[in-house]
Amino acid sequence: MSRSLNVEPITPRVTHGCVEIIDQRFLPYEYRCVTLRTVPQTAAAIADMQVRGAPLIGICAAYGIALGMLENQSTDQVHRVCDTLKQTRPTAVNLMWAVERMRTVLLNVQESARIETAWQEAIRIDEENRVQNEKIGQFGLTLIAKQFERTGRTVNILTHCNAGRLATPGWGTALAPIYLAHQAAIPVHVFIDETRPRNQGLLTAWELNAAGISHTVIVDNAGGLLMQQRRIDMAIVGADRVTKTGDVCNKIGTYLKALAAKDNHVPFYAAFPLSTVDWTLDDGITQIPIENRSLSEIQHITGIDETKTLQTLTLWEKHHPAENPGFDVTPARLVTGLITERGICLPEQLIHWKP
Amino acid sequence: MSRSLNVEPITPRVTHGCVEIIDQRFLPYEYRCVTLRTVPQTAAAIADMQVRGAPLIGICAAYGIALGMLENQSTDQVHRVCDTLKQTRPTAVNLMWAVERMRTVLLNVQESARIETAWQEAIRIDEENRVQNEKIGQFGLTLIAKQFERTGRTVNILTHCNAGRLATPGWGTALAPIYLAHQAAIPVHVFIDETRPRNQGLLTAWELNAAGISHTVIVDNAGGLLMQQRRIDMAIVGADRVTKTGDVCNKIGTYLKALAAKDNHVPFYAAFPLSTVDWTLDDGITQIPIENRSLSEIQHITGIDETKTLQTLTLWEKHHPAENPGFDVTPARLVTGLITERGICLPEQLIHWKP
Repeated sequence: MSRSLNVEPITPRVTHGCVEIIDQRFLPYEYRCVTLRTVPQTAAAIADMQVRGAPLIGICAAYGIALGMLENQSTDQVHRVCDTLKQTRPTAVNLMWAVERMRTVLLNVQESARIETAWQEAIRIDEENRVQNEKIGQFGLTLIAKQFERTGRTVNILTHCNAGRLATPGWGTALAPIYLAHQAAIPVHVFIDETRPRNQGLLTAWELNAAGISHTVIVDNAGGLLMQQRRIDMAIVGADRVTKTGDVCNKIGTYLKALAAKDNHVPFYAAFPLSTVDWTLDDGITQIPIENRSLSEIQHITGIDETKTLQTLTLWEKHHPAENPGFDVTPARLVTGLITERGICLPEQLIHWKP
Repeated sequence: MSRSLNVEPITPRVTHGCVEIIDQRFLPYEYRCVTLRTVPQTAAAIADMQVRGAPLIGICAAYGIALGMLENQSTDQVHRVCDTLKQTRPTAVNLMWAVERMRTVLLNVQESARIETAWQEAIRIDEENRVQNEKIGQFGLTLIAKQFERTGRTVNILTHCNAGRLATPGWGTALAPIYLAHQAAIPVHVFIDETRPRNQGLLTAWELNAAGISHTVIVDNAGGLLMQQRRIDMAIVGADRVTKTGDVCNKIGTYLKALAAKDNHVPFYAAFPLSTVDWTLDDGITQIPIENRSLSEIQHITGIDETKTLQTLTLWEKHHPAENPGFDVTPARLVTGLITERGICLPEQLIHWKP
């Protein structure tokens, strides 16, 4: 793959009144950009996972609200647009957070100022996210650097799903420390969980390959064995919602890796901006709604044929009942540390950072 | 699917000097039978996983030795054939066990008796396996029946890979208690792990569908969440090799489910004939060789297109390094009980059943 490819998952085009996104459903096989011009297009892009990753969907929703203001700046429209976008995905809290921030800001200005305010605030959310990523990366880098100092060997890191720059514009969350370690010439190697059913590991591999970072792809079943074999130095994952008690809701399967990490004394970190924290919750397992996604994600699988053309096949025929939960919850007791833009803390200390 | 389909994975045709197998690589999409006439064909069928499942590959190797005797009955040939077949797969101990049993028996008779002896002994191994399955099923059934008596509700069982009648002619191992519970009109529901990379969950779904047993397909990542949600009453898996201390080597990913079961107080059972036990080993993690299989299993994926034709696509392109270990080891401390043809025992008590 060309390394000069733009890996920015979202780009506002304010003067053109639109937003450009990479349609991540076709990665890594095809690099397709899509232009969003309306709220329904934005809502569909989030729900269908053209854009995905907790911070990115928050940013995308914020830009979607700006698109909604182009059409009509009434208070009714503010609520309509915010409510529509908020309903696109139920689990990630950044989405709720970004939408409510936009709603509050827009309701506080006159109708005539809402277009400009919406663009400004959405861009601010986007920019703040990039600054946060950089800080998350810097804090996380210290963990990798310490491990390298201790052993003098390549630091082997397991990650699940994609919490890179495709999910979080800038450096990503879980991958930010890895990008910065690579920049700092610390040898790192990333074991990438495939992450069925949607195989977002493909996105992580695409990103890391573009950055020239060494990696190995494994199926979701394999991480436990690698830890038993002492081949993983640490695990770093992202988060879709975190309780004030430090329970981490993330892509389905994260919990299994956290259990294996605990069982093998492998440090397990979640990296996320503090906007991911739901300060109203204290028990992730009982209180976080888990999105059940379309069975088509399990039943069908997309790849490329011999002519490099995208094809979709049926893997599981419809007469087999299936179930497709999108997330699970890793209890705080399994998490070694939380890497945020404010620093690294123990899960039980997160509450002290409540705004 | 028609319920009248023959689900016997292997059938000896002594008078025709051949062995018929179901080519499991095409299930559940296509039901293809293949005739094995030579040792190389048999070795390839095992290595390429036309037949798979620890007991079945032992049985298939035994029949393969009989095919080898048809050609030449010398002592050299006995060793040559046994050694060839033993090298087809490195992890499952039933294969070694069956081959050594055949070798011993054949070396103890004159050349002129070796054809008949080989067929007889292979058929005996096959038959003994069926009797063992029935016993494993009867013992395991008591666990399911007790659970049903306790709650009066459908018993929800998680299984990984395929340890059914396709893997172990007769009733299977892990699925034997489920078949017998269904026969006894105890309501059971099976959550089937997809089991990447080869998706042997497809075989389990095919079998259970053929038997009319209620099931739900999930990706390998989902089992932990279901246990957190208290929706799994017990897990039952097969085994490829068990140490005398009760460590269970089974399909990659089993260990992760055992960890989740322990964490959620869900009983976790392994079901296998005692021929699966390697009485020379006391530490599964350090002593059992883990087969690394072809990366093609991860890189390519097979399904059916709109015309129901089998197609194979590239999922992971070759420029992404990958690794494909076939098995992991679940330490005895995570296993609630071992279901064997001799009864159910705690892992630490297995040693008392050493022959």
